[in-house]
Amino acid sequence: MGGSLVRLIAERGEDIAARTGVRLEVTRVAVRDPARDRDLPLEPSVLTDDAASVVTADDVDLVVEVVGGTDPALGLITAALQAGRPVVSANKELLAAHGAELFELADRCGVDLLFEAAVASGIPLVRPLRESLVGEDVLRVIGIINGTTNYILTKMTEEGWGYDEALAEAQALGYAEADPTADVEGFDAGSKAAIIATIAVGVGVAAADVHHEGISRISAEDIATAGRLGYQLKLLAVAERFDDGSVAVRVHPAMVPDAHPLAAVRDSFNAVFVEGAAVGDLMFYGRGAGGMPTGSAVLGDVIDAAVNLVKGTHASLGSFGPATFRPQSELSSAFYLAVEVLDRPGVLANVAGVFGAHGVSIRSMEQLESPDSAGDGEPTARLVFITHVAREADVLATLDEFRGLDEVRSVDSVLRVLGAG
Amino acid sequence: MGGSLVRLIAERGEDIAARTGVRLEVTRVAVRDPARDRDLPLEPSVLTDDAASVVTADDVDLVVEVVGGTDPALGLITAALQAGRPVVSANKELLAAHGAELFELADRCGVDLLFEAAVASGIPLVRPLRESLVGEDVLRVIGIINGTTNYILTKMTEEGWGYDEALAEAQALGYAEADPTADVEGFDAGSKAAIIATIAVGVGVAAADVHHEGISRISAEDIATAGRLGYQLKLLAVAERFDDGSVAVRVHPAMVPDAHPLAAVRDSFNAVFVEGAAVGDLMFYGRGAGGMPTGSAVLGDVIDAAVNLVKGTHASLGSFGPATFRPQSELSSAFYLAVEVLDRPGVLANVAGVFGAHGVSIRSMEQLESPDSAGDGEPTARLVFITHVAREADVLATLDEFRGLDEVRSVDSVLRVLGAG
Repeated sequence: MGGSLVRLIAERGEDIAARTGVRLEVTRVAVRDPARDRDLPLEPSVLTDDAASVVTADDVDLVVEVVGGTDPALGLITAALQAGRPVVSANKELLAAHGAELFELADRCGVDLLFEAAVASGIPLVRPLRESLVGEDVLRVIGIINGTTNYILTKMTEEGWGYDEALAEAQALGYAEADPTADVEGFDAGSKAAIIATIAVGVGVAAADVHHEGISRISAEDIATAGRLGYQLKLLAVAERFDDGSVAVRVHPAMVPDAHPLAAVRDSFNAVFVEGAAVGDLMFYGRGAGGMPTGSAVLGDVIDAAVNLVKGTHASLGSFGPATFRPQSELSSAFYLAVEVLDRPGVLANVAGVFGAHGVSIRSMEQLESPDSAGDGEPTARLVFITHVAREADVLATLDEFRGLDEVRSVDSVLRVLGAG
Repeated sequence: MGGSLVRLIAERGEDIAARTGVRLEVTRVAVRDPARDRDLPLEPSVLTDDAASVVTADDVDLVVEVVGGTDPALGLITAALQAGRPVVSANKELLAAHGAELFELADRCGVDLLFEAAVASGIPLVRPLRESLVGEDVLRVIGIINGTTNYILTKMTEEGWGYDEALAEAQALGYAEADPTADVEGFDAGSKAAIIATIAVGVGVAAADVHHEGISRISAEDIATAGRLGYQLKLLAVAERFDDGSVAVRVHPAMVPDAHPLAAVRDSFNAVFVEGAAVGDLMFYGRGAGGMPTGSAVLGDVIDAAVNLVKGTHASLGSFGPATFRPQSELSSAFYLAVEVLDRPGVLANVAGVFGAHGVSIRSMEQLESPDSAGDGEPTARLVFITHVAREADVLATLDEFRGLDEVRSVDSVLRVLGAG
């Protein structure tokens, strides 16, 4: 990613100078091993392994941080800002942990801290949210912001692959790590969701505040059933502000109606859907990862910060109030539930009665053939429900009661359904 | 639209002041009839019919122009900029005719001229193009930027309506004017395309430079055939820059492959697809019209310009070189062609020979039943071709030669195909 930026600056520098009046020059680059051959348009003398000296050097006007992680990035960025150097960062882990305090520090130091690349790589999202929509009452942001999981779910949907097969292919293509936990369990999307929530809602949200559920338990059968019912399964990051000022930020798989623009986001592409009170529905779509898209986003920020530096101004995110989080159990959603039951008379009435007792209303029900999962010869059926919008606590209580019923063999799938009444 | 902005400022003013430190106040409003009852949160004393006095008044720091058209808007904006007042405009006709000169005037006067709402209403597009992507080599921009025609094409596709029926419904809903020419013949999209091309490519492009073809000759049969072949018919605005520095800007209907993100843009929604050398494919989606979305975009610009005014800075688009336009006949595209021919032996060989003689290669061909359009009892067939990418001049020469053949009764449809090799 740092290499892509160096190449872009070399290729585009003349054109950028002509359009903006600012000439960019890479004067120092801190790397782990300065001696390694890099095949980059850089004089060897600019390379050093002393990052601390770079961020405050006299011939450095602006610092780009693409180290990743919290340490030493937090210390380096803090030192740069305090020395009056604008910083462009692509570091989602750091900003998801320390974003609000760093944004306030940058503002106090009178310099820019820009981070377009940290959320959705090359997709312009941070700047539209912080500038174009600064006057807008943003009600909800829903993102597909992890390309690895979107690739896996797309392959499961379009090729009929199982989860393990799709994950193996994602690993072979380099989309997924050998240990895929950060992607498939929603940690990566959670960090990005925290940053989106912070800037969209204006309160400090950290990755640790984000509820997350991953995709590793999604079955080929869930995907097939969703498709038959007119939905696509997607891993969504959702940041929402309620009328009482409380917020909720979460990552979980959900069934997205075919007609929703997010349903058409395939392969490793990302998209962020924004619901505003005045502007209505917006969506920003593009490549959410990759050296060149990320380099492009960093370069846009570098030019912006450089122009501001020349003008003696900087962008401000303002201050961030503390967030009041609405507990996940108090959120409401429609749900898709798949339950394996014994195929006996009266079972459906019992199950429907449990829904009713917890105030959960059923919108549709299908009864499907079911394998005899216990292998005891007792005939079973698979019931697939879509509920109307219900409190999550009520749905969980319903499922708990199901698990205690003799006629219910297992609760196999519990998935939220986007935008269904 | 002006009313929506006044309401938004009244509703959101406190929050905007808290986030940006800038308090917005509507001090003067020029209207045709100040006496008319408006039901807006405005003191009657701020209303006047003397627009010229408003744009340079002492208690006006910033001017919002939502008059539309060239006269008197051009004179008012020029006066405001020369008096050092930043201007926010939603006026696509004006900017499509005089954009480059006004952007340069604003820069010389040291104030902002912002116009997010002029292109795609509430969709953040101008700011991402001029700021986020300023360092990007933008190769092509493809937009669905007229909601009326997209609504008509969506209804023809999804409900099987004819063009006249869909247009009548669009008129009944207020999406289309009594005289729908500006929308359905591509003039409205052409103005927006000129502005997009100007900022994306950095050369002066006016509406008069835009080649445009409308949708009024699209038949229900074209739509049905497109659907069967895996395409959606859309009215596209395309701005493209070639390696030799020449540009082409055009509006025409085209067949968009189902898997392309633009194919999923339905009803009156708009979307703009950007192809960049480093960032790859991006798309911006949302409501392209309506008082509140447009008001939201204007408000975002007002806040931006007000913050800049307080800081004593302004955004600059730089200067615009003259554009060299590549003639439409020199552009290349895949084409969909429908031809009615006499159903005689050897006709297909003759037709194929004409394609070959002009260097146009056929990717696929279908032979369909055809009504006897001449009513002379002579059996006819409908041939539907999709070509490989070919020069437009060669395709037109092919069609001209068809029209001279005895076996060809009519050339019924000529449509470009997006992204097909």
